[in-house]
Amino acid sequence: MASLIRLFVEADLSAGAEIVLTQDQQRYLSNVMRRRAGDSIAVFNGRDGEWQAVIAEISKKAGMLRVEENRKGQSLEPDLWLVFSLLKRGPVDLIAEKATELGVSRLCPVFAERTNTARLKVDRLRAIATEAAEQCGRLTLPKIDDPQSLEALLSGWPLDRGLVWLDETGSGAPIADVMAARKKGLPDALLVGPEGGFSPAELILIGKKTYVTPASMGKRLLRAETACIASLSMWQAIAGDWQNERPAGLDVI
Amino acid sequence: MASLIRLFVEADLSAGAEIVLTQDQQRYLSNVMRRRAGDSIAVFNGRDGEWQAVIAEISKKAGMLRVEENRKGQSLEPDLWLVFSLLKRGPVDLIAEKATELGVSRLCPVFAERTNTARLKVDRLRAIATEAAEQCGRLTLPKIDDPQSLEALLSGWPLDRGLVWLDETGSGAPIADVMAARKKGLPDALLVGPEGGFSPAELILIGKKTYVTPASMGKRLLRAETACIASLSMWQAIAGDWQNERPAGLDVI
Repeated sequence: MASLIRLFVEADLSAGAEIVLTQDQQRYLSNVMRRRAGDSIAVFNGRDGEWQAVIAEISKKAGMLRVEENRKGQSLEPDLWLVFSLLKRGPVDLIAEKATELGVSRLCPVFAERTNTARLKVDRLRAIATEAAEQCGRLTLPKIDDPQSLEALLSGWPLDRGLVWLDETGSGAPIADVMAARKKGLPDALLVGPEGGFSPAELILIGKKTYVTPASMGKRLLRAETACIASLSMWQAIAGDWQNERPAGLDVI
Repeated sequence: MASLIRLFVEADLSAGAEIVLTQDQQRYLSNVMRRRAGDSIAVFNGRDGEWQAVIAEISKKAGMLRVEENRKGQSLEPDLWLVFSLLKRGPVDLIAEKATELGVSRLCPVFAERTNTARLKVDRLRAIATEAAEQCGRLTLPKIDDPQSLEALLSGWPLDRGLVWLDETGSGAPIADVMAARKKGLPDALLVGPEGGFSPAELILIGKKTYVTPASMGKRLLRAETACIASLSMWQAIAGDWQNERPAGLDVI
């Protein structure tokens, strides 16, 4: 009994379709997971649900899957964005992985005044999010935006989307109360600032936005990546899909 | 304006007390944070609250603090244990750091049948937890147990302490409902299994314990360390101290 390997693929999925593996996928299946021709895996593309596929060919240099039968219909994650200030590589990688497991639909990295990291390799985050989606069983990938300034993000903010701000200055109500008051099914988002918090000018800017609701998470000062993971968990548990969906358990074949 | 450095020390704290820095503390203050004689920091020992101290002497090899005045009375974290299966070093380090930020009072690592790590450097976890406590502002360190078998832990379990089991097989009610039903102020604990879950024999053992309450966190399969962080957040937000305590903000001097 082995857990079922899941791979994200770009191609359309239908019975009999053949999919050429990328080099990374071929290496992963062959060298890491020791799979051989004839073994079954699961594939998804974010559109067509999850399908069983068989490894038709695999060598040290290439590989091909043949799609067999549909296992699950397509399902979407709740419409939840996470806006976070850029951090160093370790914490940002952690956010991409954990936010994907926790069912975020879009990651929006921003530059704040106290952001002390200038660069972000978005492709790297996409690879981390893809692997996390494969492992946690979701059928979508989160969108990952190129970084932009906080000001640009807020000035283009869609007004039908709420934004819960995890405010370590203490202006917000306790997060459990804030989450209980979210209207289920509406577009929503979470905002976590940089280490050291937003600047006074940014606090004023954020405070003026009517779609922003501050929330607090106790008196211990959480690191930015911890605040991201904790607030995503709270949202899913109270306003998201943890209320009505039970674990699927481990897929085995 | 700089954030106030906080150091955990073993010594008793009272006005005028002198504290010899450990080599790690002296290096951290001098080489990393570039602090000099006459600079102020904060110290705590888990018993006497938080005190302001001044660096009386610091050289490349040694250093001494002089305790000045009390800043905060001693406060304790809620009585919450986290029981988790040993994992590889990266995820275990992450659990020690994040559980400390999230206010756990005791970490109880266990060996389950599917635990595939034999060793744990408890001193390493203590160092990580100490640093996290210093940075997040708590006035206690979590206790960190030596690892033991799941069976030994459960057979010695104190019967006045509940145990919420994050069960990925789906037997539990949604975690928000489980947390809302915890009795505030009573000793409590969380249980997270190894990657791959508990074995059938372990599931039977856990299922027999009357103090265990299973809880579920949706259909996306969370990694063990994510389940630890998410469930600790839920507990603090609903059953713990996030309801009644606002953030302290950043200490500055």
